[in-house]
Amino acid sequence: MSNLKVHVLRLTPGQEVVGELEKYVSAQVPRGAFIMTCCGSVTSATLRLAADTNGVTNKIVKLSGHFEVLSLSGTISREGTHLHISLGDHQGAALGGHVMGDLTVFTTMEVVLGEALDVTLGRAFDNRTGYDELTITKDEREAAGTIN
Amino acid sequence: MSNLKVHVLRLTPGQEVVGELEKYVSAQVPRGAFIMTCCGSVTSATLRLAADTNGVTNKIVKLSGHFEVLSLSGTISREGTHLHISLGDHQGAALGGHVMGDLTVFTTMEVVLGEALDVTLGRAFDNRTGYDELTITKDEREAAGTIN
Amino acid sequence: MSNLKVHVLRLTPGQEVVGELEKYVSAQVPRGAFIMTCCGSVTSATLRLAADTNGVTNKIVKLSGHFEVLSLSGTISREGTHLHISLGDHQGAALGGHVMGDLTVFTTMEVVLGEALDVTLGRAFDNRTGYDELTITKDEREAAGTIN
Repeated sequence: MSNLKVHVLRLTPGQEVVGELEKYVSAQVPRGAFIMTCCGSVTSATLRLAADTNGVTNKIVKLSGHFEVLSLSGTISREGTHLHISLGDHQGAALGGHVMGDLTVFTTMEVVLGEALDVTLGRAFDNRTGYDELTITKDEREAAGTIN
Repeated sequence: MSNLKVHVLRLTPGQEVVGELEKYVSAQVPRGAFIMTCCGSVTSATLRLAADTNGVTNKIVKLSGHFEVLSLSGTISREGTHLHISLGDHQGAALGGHVMGDLTVFTTMEVVLGEALDVTLGRAFDNRTGYDELTITKDEREAAGTIN
Repeated sequence: MSNLKVHVLRLTPGQEVVGELEKYVSAQVPRGAFIMTCCGSVTSATLRLAADTNGVTNKIVKLSGHFEVLSLSGTISREGTHLHISLGDHQGAALGGHVMGDLTVFTTMEVVLGEALDVTLGRAFDNRTGYDELTITKDEREAAGTIN
């Protein structure tokens, strides 16, 4: 049985993508959402990069300039956000990492969010990783076939 | 209520991805569509890169060679197409930008398109950006719960 | 009519992504599935890179270290898997290619799979490419409108 509702959004120049998506999800998608497609451009981004070779230290970089958003992936819920982005610079080189914030829209940002109607996304501390990690809670009523 | 229809396609060697997707959407998805997944390889691509440091000039590059398509994001409707791509070259380096065209399939291109059944995607000129930007029009009948 | 079922998963430290997804799809999604979003980190990956300039040789690289998964695209069915990935390294550089395996989860891997309820995904040898390529078989019963 189909269990997906999609939400199509366009953000405009100067809006901050993470904050706007969190505000939208908090108000309109209490179950939580995931990114299905994202296409646009930004003038800034703060990213946490992959761990170094020891797996301990993650560098945080504040980017400023013009970047095409090549992809955005991950989940957003009232309990937390986990997004990874890849950006293309003015030479075409791609770079990316974990989104900390500061994704300021340059011209546009087209985003499609997906909402799984039979699960609620949340976050809970995982002592294996030291982070609040994704939790997926089945809605028994919905699972019983009364999705609408 | 579920509001997504998906369309699964495979393109074959020599086909041009943008033109084929536009033809498919024009004929089969008049409401417009967005890219949900895309996996394949190309022998060419014309990309418009991110703006330079002044935010004014965007270089256009014509790529020729073999590239894996790492991701494709964005929307396609009868009124316009907005796609960003990331490519992997034969050394594994990733590059990408705004797709202008010339995405010639090398071996295959697996594409899943999504169609939101309760909205129509279009394009309208936005004088803040100088481009035709995405418009999202709710279908009142569908919004009233008669999606089928 | 809506025809998509989504499956939301979280993989945990030490799990191998491709094997886990194939196991899940084989058991839970016999029609086959495609990647809708993927966000997490890995400590290894084996990738087949794009063909060289002659279009003949594809280098295979075994990566070891810490990488953010920036995107994952493609399809998984009982008959075969076709995934492309882009990774961000500890300097933020993006790299990627065709996934051969060895995607070992570092902290987490959030994955949303899509299942098109009216088609079955498979693989068949294509002598134009030398690979088993995606096949898409419409389910006539489902196509007749009895999806549930």
